[in-house]
Amino acid sequence: MDKTYVVGIDIGGQTSKIGIVDARGTVLIQSSIRTDTHTDAKLFVKDLCAALNKLILEVGGIANIRGIGIGAPNGNFYTGTIENAVNLTWGGNTAIPFAKLMSDKMGVPVALTNDANAAAVGEMTYGAARGMKNFIMITLGTGVGSGIVINGEVVYGHDGFAGELGHTTAVRNNGRQCNCGRTGCLETYASAIGLARTAREWLDSSNESSVLRNIPENITSKDVFEAAYQGDVLAKRIFEYTGKKLGESFADFVAFSAPEAIVLFGGLARSGDLLLKPIEESMNANLLHLWKNKIKIIFSQLKESDAAILGASALAWELK
Amino acid sequence: MDKTYVVGIDIGGQTSKIGIVDARGTVLIQSSIRTDTHTDAKLFVKDLCAALNKLILEVGGIANIRGIGIGAPNGNFYTGTIENAVNLTWGGNTAIPFAKLMSDKMGVPVALTNDANAAAVGEMTYGAARGMKNFIMITLGTGVGSGIVINGEVVYGHDGFAGELGHTTAVRNNGRQCNCGRTGCLETYASAIGLARTAREWLDSSNESSVLRNIPENITSKDVFEAAYQGDVLAKRIFEYTGKKLGESFADFVAFSAPEAIVLFGGLARSGDLLLKPIEESMNANLLHLWKNKIKIIFSQLKESDAAILGASALAWELK
Repeated sequence: MDKTYVVGIDIGGQTSKIGIVDARGTVLIQSSIRTDTHTDAKLFVKDLCAALNKLILEVGGIANIRGIGIGAPNGNFYTGTIENAVNLTWGGNTAIPFAKLMSDKMGVPVALTNDANAAAVGEMTYGAARGMKNFIMITLGTGVGSGIVINGEVVYGHDGFAGELGHTTAVRNNGRQCNCGRTGCLETYASAIGLARTAREWLDSSNESSVLRNIPENITSKDVFEAAYQGDVLAKRIFEYTGKKLGESFADFVAFSAPEAIVLFGGLARSGDLLLKPIEESMNANLLHLWKNKIKIIFSQLKESDAAILGASALAWELK
Repeated sequence: MDKTYVVGIDIGGQTSKIGIVDARGTVLIQSSIRTDTHTDAKLFVKDLCAALNKLILEVGGIANIRGIGIGAPNGNFYTGTIENAVNLTWGGNTAIPFAKLMSDKMGVPVALTNDANAAAVGEMTYGAARGMKNFIMITLGTGVGSGIVINGEVVYGHDGFAGELGHTTAVRNNGRQCNCGRTGCLETYASAIGLARTAREWLDSSNESSVLRNIPENITSKDVFEAAYQGDVLAKRIFEYTGKKLGESFADFVAFSAPEAIVLFGGLARSGDLLLKPIEESMNANLLHLWKNKIKIIFSQLKESDAAILGASALAWELK
């Protein structure tokens, strides 16, 4: 029998999603388990495989499964390990041979990479980057992740950890402190959390009126979006600033790999033109002449609820 | 008969060098013609081929030549054209089908790219990057050029013009004006001309004593090197500043492609530790933890007088 399906697994800090996907990118069936109730990687793998086996039975058994793709924080494609993933309760300061643990238990090949690289493969296989050989995926979530595709292949680099564009420098002097230990990282300005941080800083440092002042507790990027959408001037300026920072960085990324497009994914990417316009404006203002108005900025075409599973699953089609 | 040799041609603004190279990277014979005495590309090609044919006769004729590799400003690998090369007297605002003009005249395959990409291929074929699959070549000459190698292949990008790292932003606000029209480009700080510019600015803006004040005319990077080498404090600080700017940018480049090494080439690279120490220090201070003290900064191992020919010639070995 043909092996017609692949499995996509997205390991998140709180929840891990599992799905079975066909060649057209349809998630046939999915479920999830808690990630953070485990402190031991092997026990987590055991529970994950139990949940997965239930799904596999419903599509006719393991004989139908070509392979498993996994997107995980600090996932290393070359070694199949999850390394020093401090955001995972069972991650710790070690390298967990996650792909091997899974393939030993399931008896099918397993590929593993980080979530942003998985998203790039997903977009190339099922989404907005279909047919593209050179593009950069930027995920705008609580952090800023990236997956770089050159000549149709994800760039993993010498050690498997290439593509950390959220940790390139957006502000060189007196930049914001980043969780990674550096300062001025793009992520501290352009993630959902970075945008909310801009809002709080600007509200604190001026008396400008804004509906954002009515929000009692911690302002979120969603609050800023809604305010901007309703025409709040300060909120709109926060989006302009965030887009400007992204566009400036994008110009440097283009100078590196001359992509056909930059694909945006994640919560902030749902802001549409509020973010897109300032990105395009500042990117083009900073590009070399030869690239001005030639680099497309596009949005992911994967359904958000399926995207993490789809991205991870796409890795499995490439398994030899 | 085996086709045992390749031709390397380096097109420079003033002079173009031609050489015949064997598989070990020995330049068997070389010559050069003036580039800037021509205003017509076809006539230049005619003279270039005449000079090349003389060399080819001396190694037994065209039957011994496998192919021709050309490094040229604004050379596009995909199309074989030299595009908008304003520094070439016969370049102008057009795309010259240089590879085709050459292959039509010579009857052997021709590959063409820009000089920094050619240098990267040369280093990978004959030099310091032999055996490396992931590295970045940085040429520190009158400008800052770059050739990026990922998975053993030069990155050309969607349009053939990837790898313009000299035109990434080193200084975001109030950066120096660059010839490219942008401001703050790495090239304006870290090229030989950029370093001399730092010297002039710093001499003008302070009264600090320095042997550089004794130089009657335009200060060059060589003057600054000699002063620093002799212990001049200001000159040493100029090298520290230049290295700091390079190291900061290198940290961003590493976040992109996670190379095994960054290879330095060109006039400024001869400054040795004066430049290397501050580069390493600032790169490591700016890298994510996972890369700290793991990325090698090394110098080109190609003999400077042969390097341009060798780099271009290496392209020809890859011709199918």
